[in-house]
Amino acid sequence: MIQTYLKEQNIDAAFITTPDNVFYLSGFKSDPHERLLGVMVFKDADPFMICPKMEVPDALATGWNFKAVGHDDKENAWEILKNTAAQYATVQTLAIEKSHVTVERLELLEAIFSGVTISGLDAKIAGMRLVKSADELEKMREAAKLADYAIQVGCDELAEGKTEIEVLSAIETAILKKGYYMSFDTMVLTGLNAASPHGTPGNTKIQKGDLVLFDLGVIYEGYCSDITRTVAFGEPRNDEQRAIYEAVRASNEAAINAVKPGVRAMDLDKTSRDVIENAGYGEYYTHRMGHGLGISVHEEPSMHGANEKEVVEGMVFTIEPGIYKGDAAGVRIEDDVYVTADGVDVLTSFPKELQIIEPK
Amino acid sequence: MIQTYLKEQNIDAAFITTPDNVFYLSGFKSDPHERLLGVMVFKDADPFMICPKMEVPDALATGWNFKAVGHDDKENAWEILKNTAAQYATVQTLAIEKSHVTVERLELLEAIFSGVTISGLDAKIAGMRLVKSADELEKMREAAKLADYAIQVGCDELAEGKTEIEVLSAIETAILKKGYYMSFDTMVLTGLNAASPHGTPGNTKIQKGDLVLFDLGVIYEGYCSDITRTVAFGEPRNDEQRAIYEAVRASNEAAINAVKPGVRAMDLDKTSRDVIENAGYGEYYTHRMGHGLGISVHEEPSMHGANEKEVVEGMVFTIEPGIYKGDAAGVRIEDDVYVTADGVDVLTSFPKELQIIEPK
Repeated sequence: MIQTYLKEQNIDAAFITTPDNVFYLSGFKSDPHERLLGVMVFKDADPFMICPKMEVPDALATGWNFKAVGHDDKENAWEILKNTAAQYATVQTLAIEKSHVTVERLELLEAIFSGVTISGLDAKIAGMRLVKSADELEKMREAAKLADYAIQVGCDELAEGKTEIEVLSAIETAILKKGYYMSFDTMVLTGLNAASPHGTPGNTKIQKGDLVLFDLGVIYEGYCSDITRTVAFGEPRNDEQRAIYEAVRASNEAAINAVKPGVRAMDLDKTSRDVIENAGYGEYYTHRMGHGLGISVHEEPSMHGANEKEVVEGMVFTIEPGIYKGDAAGVRIEDDVYVTADGVDVLTSFPKELQIIEPK
Repeated sequence: MIQTYLKEQNIDAAFITTPDNVFYLSGFKSDPHERLLGVMVFKDADPFMICPKMEVPDALATGWNFKAVGHDDKENAWEILKNTAAQYATVQTLAIEKSHVTVERLELLEAIFSGVTISGLDAKIAGMRLVKSADELEKMREAAKLADYAIQVGCDELAEGKTEIEVLSAIETAILKKGYYMSFDTMVLTGLNAASPHGTPGNTKIQKGDLVLFDLGVIYEGYCSDITRTVAFGEPRNDEQRAIYEAVRASNEAAINAVKPGVRAMDLDKTSRDVIENAGYGEYYTHRMGHGLGISVHEEPSMHGANEKEVVEGMVFTIEPGIYKGDAAGVRIEDDVYVTADGVDVLTSFPKELQIIEPK
């Protein structure tokens, strides 16, 4: 809890403005663009929220149990922040998210709370978000199920001569129709497009023998999933496509089997990398093994080869090895995993045996 | 030019990191997410760019004529920035975009350039971008034509019982197929959904007698369009829908006719507002008249009732009055206009007489 932290550190207040952190603390999800949205937490008083006036009813309806102060475009939001805060406490020390607050806003805060000493709150909140509650896990399970469904929609949509964009649009439309949003722009890449580090979906037509890569995610009640599957449209053209696929699959599975509390992020990255290196494709696995997942589609922990931190029960992250060999194939297989007391619970469940989608 | 400004102000260097400003200065468009992308301009030396290593070839290919220094995830980008800058000049005074640079990055810059004095560059660059060149204008014309086309796709797609999402998906797919991206999430709202300030496209079905509101934009070579049209699906149900439509149309046209160099933004806002107030709907016109448009979909000038600045030749902004009457109709009509030497050039051209789309 932020208030406990403030008491421990003897800091008067914290002002939280990252939309994802505001959601984490308040249950209210909003993207205010350039307008002011924030939660002010005090060491010795109740917190309050400041947000655009038209959003006050939403904030109160979606779970915020304290005061919510509105401001409209004709008002000075910072003046309102100053006057409201003054009713709660004198702020001489203030914690902020240094990776989010701009210099312009820092100067406004320094003007409002004159003589204030600023400290960073980023690591504290990232640490709180690292371990998911049972409620958060249930939402992430639902988000993962929707991702599985979206991959199925994509597979059903594949047809000779259809373009990447047509398949992508069908997936996004199906999810929108269900009332959900994607957690990022959907990727559908066919053939050697999937092997390019700059690949973006275009008008390339799907042809028999292509491997088709889907990378997508869905948001369920504020929580993101993120899945990648690579499937074959008709029998693969050659053995190297199959060899690359099986190396990535083995890498993904080896890393999943190695997950348990106490293992370091760097060890998991190495486990996934060793399999691909032993298959002779090490130079084509060009990115980290995965990333934390939750309210943000990329959050802590970063699962890379230099991260010495141990994974703990309750973390959710992706395991997404890939091989991108420009003259052969691009394959990535990504799952979302939850760390249990003694192992792992894989949230995404679309099959990983190479799926061969028969052309109709 | 930034270098001229640095000489005038006697500032050693400027570090520009907003992706839209990097594009404006370099021709290279990239969203580096949390990675470091920036252009360092010196008072007395050539500039250089720092960007993720895999993007260096793109930066050089899309118009950057100076040095481009890469960094990868295993390197300390800030150390590379420090060492590269040291080869060019000693930096004791540095201009940054205070509305974009985070406190975390400010502290990194202060560590790299020890004892540095920081100033803000935001207003200077926004001012440079305010007046469009002939080349920028041509790109915005193309972006506007694509927006007109997208509205036509939407109209062609309307059918009894089709949902907002289905129509929206057809529009976005058509633009993607042409090889372009939307400048923001497309809005398709039918009937009273268009009158809600929180309206987002959903599974509401289009019915005969509805007014359907489209708000969308397309990016052409880095420049955005932004258009809104409201059309009738079949004959409108009642006279109030028509009255609201004609009030908005008259408001939009009155403001367009009033545009010329020397007119204040607030006067144009008032011209558009007077027409709607005289029609009896003033309380339902709940936002500013418009906003500047260019590389960003929202940029300066803000066309609101308190902006005393005069418009000048070369500005591009939107004129988008609307009436949102919850029990009657939601109508907005938005054009993109370019200020000429003695008047206005309207870039968007989809008809504004109420279009009645006949149900098939």
